[in-house]
Formats: sequence, structure tokens, C-alpha cells
Amino acid sequence: MTADEAVVFMREDCHVCRAEGLGSRTRVLLTVGEKSVVATLYQVTSDLLGHGEAGLSEAAWEKLGVAEGTAILVSHPPPLESFRDVRARIFGKRLDERQFAGIIADVATGRYSVVETAAFLTAGSAFPLDEAETTALTRVMVAAGQQLRWGSSPIVDKHCIGGLPGNRTTPIVVAIVAALGLTMPKTSSRAITSPAGTADTMETLAPVDLDVDQIRRVVENEGGCVVWGGAVNLSPADDLLIRVERVLDLDSEGQLVASVLSKKVAAGASHLVLDLPVGPTAKLRSQAAAEALSARLIAVASAFGIRCQALVSDGSQPVGFGIGPALEARDVVAVLRQIPECPLDLQVRACTLAGAILELAGRCPAGAGASLAAETLRNGRAWEKFQRICEAQGGMRQPPVAAERQPWLAPATGTVTTIDNRVLARVAKLAGAPAMKAAGVDLQVKLGDRVAQGQPLFYIHAETLAEIDYALHYANVVALPIAVAPDDGKEIA
Amino acid sequence: MTADEAVVFMREDCHVCRAEGLGSRTRVLLTVGEKSVVATLYQVTSDLLGHGEAGLSEAAWEKLGVAEGTAILVSHPPPLESFRDVRARIFGKRLDERQFAGIIADVATGRYSVVETAAFLTAGSAFPLDEAETTALTRVMVAAGQQLRWGSSPIVDKHCIGGLPGNRTTPIVVAIVAALGLTMPKTSSRAITSPAGTADTMETLAPVDLDVDQIRRVVENEGGCVVWGGAVNLSPADDLLIRVERVLDLDSEGQLVASVLSKKVAAGASHLVLDLPVGPTAKLRSQAAAEALSARLIAVASAFGIRCQALVSDGSQPVGFGIGPALEARDVVAVLRQIPECPLDLQVRACTLAGAILELAGRCPAGAGASLAAETLRNGRAWEKFQRICEAQGGMRQPPVAAERQPWLAPATGTVTTIDNRVLARVAKLAGAPAMKAAGVDLQVKLGDRVAQGQPLFYIHAETLAEIDYALHYANVVALPIAVAPDDGKEIA
Repeated sequence: MTADEAVVFMREDCHVCRAEGLGSRTRVLLTVGEKSVVATLYQVTSDLLGHGEAGLSEAAWEKLGVAEGTAILVSHPPPLESFRDVRARIFGKRLDERQFAGIIADVATGRYSVVETAAFLTAGSAFPLDEAETTALTRVMVAAGQQLRWGSSPIVDKHCIGGLPGNRTTPIVVAIVAALGLTMPKTSSRAITSPAGTADTMETLAPVDLDVDQIRRVVENEGGCVVWGGAVNLSPADDLLIRVERVLDLDSEGQLVASVLSKKVAAGASHLVLDLPVGPTAKLRSQAAAEALSARLIAVASAFGIRCQALVSDGSQPVGFGIGPALEARDVVAVLRQIPECPLDLQVRACTLAGAILELAGRCPAGAGASLAAETLRNGRAWEKFQRICEAQGGMRQPPVAAERQPWLAPATGTVTTIDNRVLARVAKLAGAPAMKAAGVDLQVKLGDRVAQGQPLFYIHAETLAEIDYALHYANVVALPIAVAPDDGKEIA
Repeated sequence: MTADEAVVFMREDCHVCRAEGLGSRTRVLLTVGEKSVVATLYQVTSDLLGHGEAGLSEAAWEKLGVAEGTAILVSHPPPLESFRDVRARIFGKRLDERQFAGIIADVATGRYSVVETAAFLTAGSAFPLDEAETTALTRVMVAAGQQLRWGSSPIVDKHCIGGLPGNRTTPIVVAIVAALGLTMPKTSSRAITSPAGTADTMETLAPVDLDVDQIRRVVENEGGCVVWGGAVNLSPADDLLIRVERVLDLDSEGQLVASVLSKKVAAGASHLVLDLPVGPTAKLRSQAAAEALSARLIAVASAFGIRCQALVSDGSQPVGFGIGPALEARDVVAVLRQIPECPLDLQVRACTLAGAILELAGRCPAGAGASLAAETLRNGRAWEKFQRICEAQGGMRQPPVAAERQPWLAPATGTVTTIDNRVLARVAKLAGAPAMKAAGVDLQVKLGDRVAQGQPLFYIHAETLAEIDYALHYANVVALPIAVAPDDGKEIA
């Protein structure tokens, strides 16, 4: 299923539109036999379409399951009654579970256009969801999709609250805890507004589009997996909401909690560890913000019987070296294989999180988790488990390498004082990530490093020189990714 | 110019998209020679397009001014920096004039997609614009378009704050005050969320798509006009905002004030009378809401040197009998011609507003305006002036009559106790208004009327029986347009 908006193209002077009183951007109901989809009508003047002919976007095409030449019935859609509640919400009225259920059902079945979806998301950002609303929204988002049930207990899970490039601990954590006998059926997301989601990164190492039966088989055999949650229709409304959040570069606390927890509840988790990186250019800017969010996450999780622990971590700079799916996968493999030059910060974070999971699930005494995790990396059992998981998911892959590479050079000799997560994420996105798997940024330095003028501070990887130029232009002219304080003490900014 | 969103269609496997890293719903920059437009990319799988071929929506086609077969350069658009301010606004930061100017410039040039526009509008509804923001937004909306300047003074104008079906006083008011020597170059809107705007109604009587030179000629010769403001590019961003407001059925106070006043300022008004209907199913539900809005309108208007008076009026039921462009035009002409069965409520409201304008502009003593207006109707001078204005605008027309008509019958013998403006407006829209000019509702009763069971309370007019069925279904099953209290005293609801 594609999360894209369904669109139908018809001639402006089409007699069907005229008879039905349908103008451009009207929402229309397309019906073929038993199947129907609500789509946005675009009127075109091109001669590509004849009178009475319609063109369909890929999303509409897939939902109707039609062949070329099939007759389609075009009519007015039923009124979108649930949007009345969105309007009330915009003007400050709180919503109950029944109202959220109506909205989410209409979102999940594609009856909301991107315009209505944008209004719903913006309203929940401007006038934040309270705990009751967040719990209600989480519950209806779970109910709108498929739910996984596992015989055994505990079922462990983790989640990182966005914003920190390269913080790709999940594949390492899954490998460690599964190697130690815990069950961790991890469903991950693709990027919302970042240059890579865990599913994007993992996809460069193994297939992630597994169905429920395939996931069950992998988990039964190996105790863990790292798959894309969207492929198994867990919380399907979330994928449609995320599509619009990505355009708006917006995710509110309530929506974020509902998005995270609806997938954990649907995936059947009983124990959950959260990573909350805090830093001046991370999503969470202060300890207080992280504590408020973790309190909300823990409270809503407990309403669903999930034991949840939140760990605040350092978010002052990217984790590892790579930013972008394939470059991050390279770092993950380096840690798992315990290559000497592997990124130690990524390793430490993965061990901390895996340790917390091991303790929360009662697999080891309090305080012993992190060292048990580190030992599991050192003795090769995590790397062995990871390879087995990749094979079970459909076969291990070599991450792709980009066709082009260009450095960004230190403007002075001195000390690295600032590394801007957001600017670097944007550079990686302008280079093509996450759509282009090999694209991104390959950092060469960390905060506090001494550098010489003209030394490469990072490389931009992309498939075309046009994208490199585009990303370099941004890094050189629009925003500063890395600041260096020269030896005379004056910072370059 | 069309206010529609620019869209480009390309094959999903197009090598241009792949090389540039462009996915579906990406915003792309289309360039042909000196002209460019930012459009939303939709990927299609159809064989209608070949590799390297692109299809354009009408809006994109017009803005580029291309012929079929022209080569188009597709690239990444420059970053949408002004949306950063929209995001800040969503999270509660107030904006200044410079920030609004950036946003409105990007909206007016089509660089905002409907998703970003929806977020901007929703933010201004959830966290209302204050007076300084409203004034700043008004000023930048004026600056984004054309401004009319008139030699003489006063230049009078009127505006009704939406929500009351059939309240089509404008053509009558213009005819009266122009007949009495005032200058009233009236630019009106098409419907936002209603079944008819004044421009839609007037268009059934005369052309309204006049350019600035044509308007100037009509006003010089006749002292007044009723034209569509969108055709002369007054406050062009407003038309794009209205397009999305229409989908969301949303207009906030600040946006409403900026929308109304930016067009009045751009049209060169010096004296403005506002009609604010109040009623349980009108836009304004209470006297207090009307007073708050009129205070804001008067304050912002004064910042632009406009003398403004607000009149609160009865909004408990529709005005006149017709709802929909042609049916409302019929009522307007009936009042102007002083036909005995003409709707008296429409006549009284038009005379009250015309009287207020005559007094505000110093054309008659305080308290004498309404009777002077009524006299101008009675003696035929307003009707004569109206015909001359229609001729000057391009020739008077006969409003169309719908192909189909069906009654909605009284459920009991008794008294009409409620007439729901919103439900009736929706019935008229489902019947096809305003796109279908002849479609709508023709009311047969007013509040307090005695009716017999089975008597038609209104007729639905439409071009097809399918639309009539659709509107009747809504009126019969979904919502009650008119309530009748039977003689035993129990209300049917």
C-alpha cells in the first residue's frame, strides 16, 4: 500500500465533471465493482485524456486494483462528518475517543485529503493534546490496523525520540538482546523528517518489507528482527499522518506519543526502553523538555500495560560518522564486527540501551546490563546473531556506495566547537537521503577535535554532482554545519 | 490566473526524477526560459506519458505559458525559508510584518503547496492573530497585489461577514447609492464556503471578470459597479488562501479581517459599512462575538485611514427566498423592480445598509439614510441605475433556470420554529451551487409561518436528478433544515 494521496485527472471540459458539478480539487468517489477510493480531482487541459477518460495516480490505481480500460464510476463522496470534530479541535474543544476514532478511520481509509490532514496535525501542535486525548488517539490508531500477538513474554522494544543524526542503535541492540535470549520483534519506521529512519538503514543490509507470517518465522527462529512497520499495517493511519508531517516538518508531543506508542502496542510490546537525546540542535532542547515528554510517554504506555523506562542521553552532536541510510549501516556493521576504528559513541549508546532492556526484562541484575551487552559484542555473539537475522529476513546485503563524493573543508586551524545536527541532517537530505540510500554525510570529526585549515570535516555523498552542488551550496552559503574556533580564540561563524 | 495548485505529472520510473532524487509529492521547480513555477510532483505509472515527458495541471500550464512539446527544466526549488516562521507561529510565536511579508510573497507566487497553506491557516485559527499581526498581515496582503486609486472622495464600500444564505444586498445597495451620486466601485468575492458569493450571483446578471481599465470606465460613467475582485489581482494571496479555507471550511477572525480589509484597502475605499448578521446558525452566534469582531475590523481599518461603521443584524434565518447564484439574483431583481411579491426582508436590509453608507459619507443627515434609500427604490431610479451598470459591465443577462426541481414537504401541520442556515446552505451546495449557477434552494416560508402537512417548504433546484437526490438525502436523513412545531405543541425534530 502506498501512503500517497489518491488523485484522479480528468479533462476540464469533461461532461462527467459538468453533470456532477465537480470542479478542480473537489474530492470525488471512484468506484469499480466492490472497491472504492476517495480521490482529489485535478482538471487538466491536455489532450492526453479524451472525453470521459480519467487518469489515476499510483495510490488510486493500487487501491482500486484496476486494469487499463476499466470503467470507473465517478461520484460525490459521502460528507466527511468527522472533519467537523477537527474544526472544533482547531477552535479549542477537546476530543474524546469516539471523535478520534471517526477521524482516524477516515484518515486510514484515505478519505482525508492532505489539506484536511495538515489541519488536523497543525491543530494538535498549536493546542497540544492532553494525556486523555493522547491515550484516546493512541488507542484508536492501534484499532485502525493490524495487531501482533506473541505467545511468550516479555516482548521487549526500544524507541529513540528523533532528531539525532546517525543514532542508529536499534540493529545493534536487537542483535545483543536476541543473542542473550530475549524476544525483540522490532518494527521500525522510515524517515519522517530525517535523512534516514531505522527501516531505511536496515534495508541496505537486508529486506525489511516482511509480512506478518514472515516476521513471525524470523522471530521464532532468531528471537529478533528489524523490519519496516508500514509493511504489516501496524497503525496505518500513522503512515498517512507521517507523510504530511514530513512536508510540514512538524510533529507535536501528543501526535509523537500516539505515533510511537500505537506502533508499540500494535506490535505487542510489554517492556519498552526509550532513548531521549537532549542538545541545542536535537529535537529535545532541554532536560526539562525530555522529562516532560518521558513522563507523558510512560503515563500513556502504562494505560496499555507496557512497562516503560526513559533514558535521557547526550544529543549535542551526531552519533557515529555516517548520516544517511548506507553510511549509517556501515557504522552499525563496524560496531557489530568490533572493527578497531568503529564509532565508540555508537557502541556505548547501544550497550547502554541494550543493558537497560536486559535489566527491565529481568534478564540480569540492576547495574549489570551495559557490561553484559558489551561482552556480547566483544565475544562476537551479537555479530553472529545479526547475520542470522539478516539471512532470516531474506539475505544479507552490502550497503551501496554513492557515485560521487566531495569534502567540506575546515575554514581555519583550531578546535571544533559546534556541530549542528539540523544543518547536517538537511545537508544529507539535500544530497538525496533517504530516497537515495547511498547519499548523505560522512563526518570526519567530533566536538573538541583539533583540526587544520583545509582539512575535510565531512564528505557529502550523492548519486549526482548536481545534488552535491545543491548540498554544498546550502552548507557554504545558507547555514553553517560545523564551527571551528581558531587558535587565536575567535570562533568562525 | 487560476488560484489552483500547480501540479506536474511524471512517470514513476522517469530518469529525470531518479537523477534529481525527486519522489512523489516533492515540490519541484519548473523552468521555461524566464518563467518558472513551483509545482507538486505526482508520479504516475500510466503509459500516457513517455520517459522524459511531463504533464502539467492547468495552473502550471498557464503560469509557464508553454505550448505542447516545449522543453521544461525540472529541478529542486529553493528552500522555502518563510515556512520556518509558520512553524514558529504554530508553536505560539507571534509574527511581525517582515515575516508575514515573506510568507504572503511565497503564497502569492504559488510556492506554498496546499499542505503548507493549510498549516498556516490552521495556526492562525488555533492561536488567533492579535491586532498588530492582523494589521501587518493586511498590509502585506495589499502590497502583494494591485491597488486601485480613484481621484474623487469619498469612495464607499460595504461588506457582509458571511454565513447568512441569500443575504445578497450588495447589488441593490450599489444601485441605490450610485443613483444618488456616490462612488461605489464594488469588488466582490466568489463563494468561500457558501453556496454563492456576490460575484457568483452578479455573474448571472452581467459579466464580472472586468480588468482595471474596464472597471474604471464603468465607475466613471455610472458611479458604481459589482465585479469580481479576483479578476483584477487585488490581494492575490487571499484567493489562494480562500481556496484552502474552502476545503477546510475554516476562516479565523484575524484571517477574515485581513481578507476583508486587504481587498477594501486595495480597492481604494475611504468609507466602509459592515453588515454582521447574528443568529444561532449564522457565522456569528452572539452579540458579543459580533461586537468583538467589529471592534477588530474598525481598529484595523482605522490603521489604513478607512472610516468604518458596523451594523449588527438579524441572522436567525436566510434572507429572501433564493439560495444559490441564480435564485438569489432573481430576488435581487425583484426588489430592484419593486415587484409586489419581492422579499421584503432583503429590501429592508439593503435600505438599512445603503442608508448607513449615505449617512457615513455625509450624503444625508443622520437618521435620514434608510428612507432616502427606500425612496430611490420606489421611484425606479435604483433599478434604472442597476440596468445601466449591467450594460456598462458588458450587457445584462437573464439568470439561468435549473433543469430539475423537487419540493421538500412540511412533516406536519403547525408553525415554522427553526430554519437552519447551515443545513440549507449545505443542501444548496449538494445540489451543485455555486459551480452550477442555477442550482440551489428556493425557500417558500419564513420563521413563524403557519404551514399544512405536505406543503412544500422549499424546492431544490439542480441540473441533474442525481444532485437533487443527493441533496434530498441529506435533508431527509442527515440533518433537519426546517423544524415545524405541530398544533399540539410538540416540535418535530
